[in-house]
Amino acid sequence: MSDISSTSKPVIVTPGDPAGIGAEITLKAALASPIAFVAIADPAHMADAAKKFGINIPIHVWQKGTVIEPGCLTILEHNWPAEIIPGKPIKENSLAIIDAIKSAVSEIRSGNASALVTNPINKFILYQAGFKFPGHTEFLATLSSVRTQPVMMLANKFLRVIPTTIHNPVSEIPSILTYDLLYKTIVIARQDLITDFGIPNPRIAVCGLNPHAGEQGALGSEEIDMISPVISQLLSEDIHIDGPLPADTLFHQEARDNYDLVIGMYHDQVLPVVKTLDFNNTVNITLGLDFIRTSPDHGTAYNIAGKNIAKCDSLLAAISYAENLSQTRGKYTQINSRSIR
Amino acid sequence: MSDISSTSKPVIVTPGDPAGIGAEITLKAALASPIAFVAIADPAHMADAAKKFGINIPIHVWQKGTVIEPGCLTILEHNWPAEIIPGKPIKENSLAIIDAIKSAVSEIRSGNASALVTNPINKFILYQAGFKFPGHTEFLATLSSVRTQPVMMLANKFLRVIPTTIHNPVSEIPSILTYDLLYKTIVIARQDLITDFGIPNPRIAVCGLNPHAGEQGALGSEEIDMISPVISQLLSEDIHIDGPLPADTLFHQEARDNYDLVIGMYHDQVLPVVKTLDFNNTVNITLGLDFIRTSPDHGTAYNIAGKNIAKCDSLLAAISYAENLSQTRGKYTQINSRSIR
Repeated sequence: MSDISSTSKPVIVTPGDPAGIGAEITLKAALASPIAFVAIADPAHMADAAKKFGINIPIHVWQKGTVIEPGCLTILEHNWPAEIIPGKPIKENSLAIIDAIKSAVSEIRSGNASALVTNPINKFILYQAGFKFPGHTEFLATLSSVRTQPVMMLANKFLRVIPTTIHNPVSEIPSILTYDLLYKTIVIARQDLITDFGIPNPRIAVCGLNPHAGEQGALGSEEIDMISPVISQLLSEDIHIDGPLPADTLFHQEARDNYDLVIGMYHDQVLPVVKTLDFNNTVNITLGLDFIRTSPDHGTAYNIAGKNIAKCDSLLAAISYAENLSQTRGKYTQINSRSIR
Repeated sequence: MSDISSTSKPVIVTPGDPAGIGAEITLKAALASPIAFVAIADPAHMADAAKKFGINIPIHVWQKGTVIEPGCLTILEHNWPAEIIPGKPIKENSLAIIDAIKSAVSEIRSGNASALVTNPINKFILYQAGFKFPGHTEFLATLSSVRTQPVMMLANKFLRVIPTTIHNPVSEIPSILTYDLLYKTIVIARQDLITDFGIPNPRIAVCGLNPHAGEQGALGSEEIDMISPVISQLLSEDIHIDGPLPADTLFHQEARDNYDLVIGMYHDQVLPVVKTLDFNNTVNITLGLDFIRTSPDHGTAYNIAGKNIAKCDSLLAAISYAENLSQTRGKYTQINSRSIR
């Protein structure tokens, strides 16, 4: 075990929007995390923040290739072009926010880091600097060498869910939700459950789109026209899958014992449930990339930035997931004697 | 206390579809319930069922106006025209299923019973006998002397939720969800929280329709065009209300402490959460009627009918809610010296 630990590459954590709670929770996580990680950050800014928040922690610059230890903040240096004011995002720092994400992926590509953890960004500020993506996830997909669709999973120790459509108005869901999208989402999710979560034959439950999964067509036709055919196809491929199932009877303990993952049809069908089960420790995981990426499941939280009340629980959970998924993928790759997809 | 108890009228329980689990859970509830109730049932059928399920309980015919006691099954006699086969619903009993509901409401109108608890029906079988309603709730609204829209609440000890639209395909939600519907739903719900739940100034949280409550219009316009105006209007009426709020951050313990009720926009936005929090003890409550009505939050469960494995937890919770809501409404009416709405 000590061999693996001493030779393992660190998880790398991006700063996110510096006007948010990223610096604060990164410092708190560095103090609390049993897993060593590298944070992309401005050392002077972090030293100031540590002093302001009363966090007494050694700050080191990352020496790539060396073993880093928990209990200190290890930094990959990064500069912010404009002043950082907590709670006041400014577009002048936007390109640097994006650059930090690119740097992190580059360190993974170069073999210096193992997995990516991203602190929250504010896409609306980034849009003012020319960012053209619906969010972090879609941007990261362009940095992946594998050209699949990115798949967003929310996970905690009680439940894993994937909304097939994500950030779409409800009025657009029926037209966006296609056979292809659902099929690919499930195939990608299943593959990553095998390689990254170490589940050899994942059991997948699929929600209907409509209430009561459409009641045999009485409350909508998408289950009959599209969802059931996808499930039939996947069953014919020997995939362990069940559905379309009514979402409202799918999430209590007894039901959860029957599957490893729920595929929901849209955001508010599954995210409220997973966050209700463990709000502070839910992690956002992007599947379908050629690197591991997790993030805390909250936003920039400008309203509490700089107030020293932000909790680092979700970031800690994201770091822990990134480390575990990365190690599991590494073992899987080794055992199956083939390169990462 | 003994005065109130000895003079109180009983809750009345309908049989629902006799091919479902209604008889079984009613017998089990009669054995377990600390609250006495009257069940509409065929005495011979119930005696047979009790014997089959090994439930040793005295069965009495209800003497209206007398005090009934828990620990026995008190029956208002009812006949089934056709044979009852567990798990095999037949249309020949459909009119009798509907008649039982009418009889129960009639006993409440006559002052013999206090509140209605309905066992599950199967509307598809009832349709074959000419039933024309989307469900129990809409049918009961026609039996109410108050001509408001019925409002469906799901409640347990952790959470109360109301889906503004209920049994509609997702594709129809945006057009069905109107200012009028939302406004009336909230006003009715608030009124019943005051009179039946004993909450003098209910705090109401309102979900957005779209993910993240629309992100200021980026993910849908209904929040700006319709939901916010309803909330502004209600705030101007001094109602304690907040929203539109993102559904995914609204249901953990810390968030729940801030309100007494969540108004969701549709079925799968709020029902999965409330059932996840306490699957076996969630109760369906119809607001906006001139009588109290609750029901267990499950279906006819044909698949387990007759197998003696059905749980009566939700029916027990429904009976308990019916009794408590009825007593609270009674006190409210007395204190406010006016007749029931």
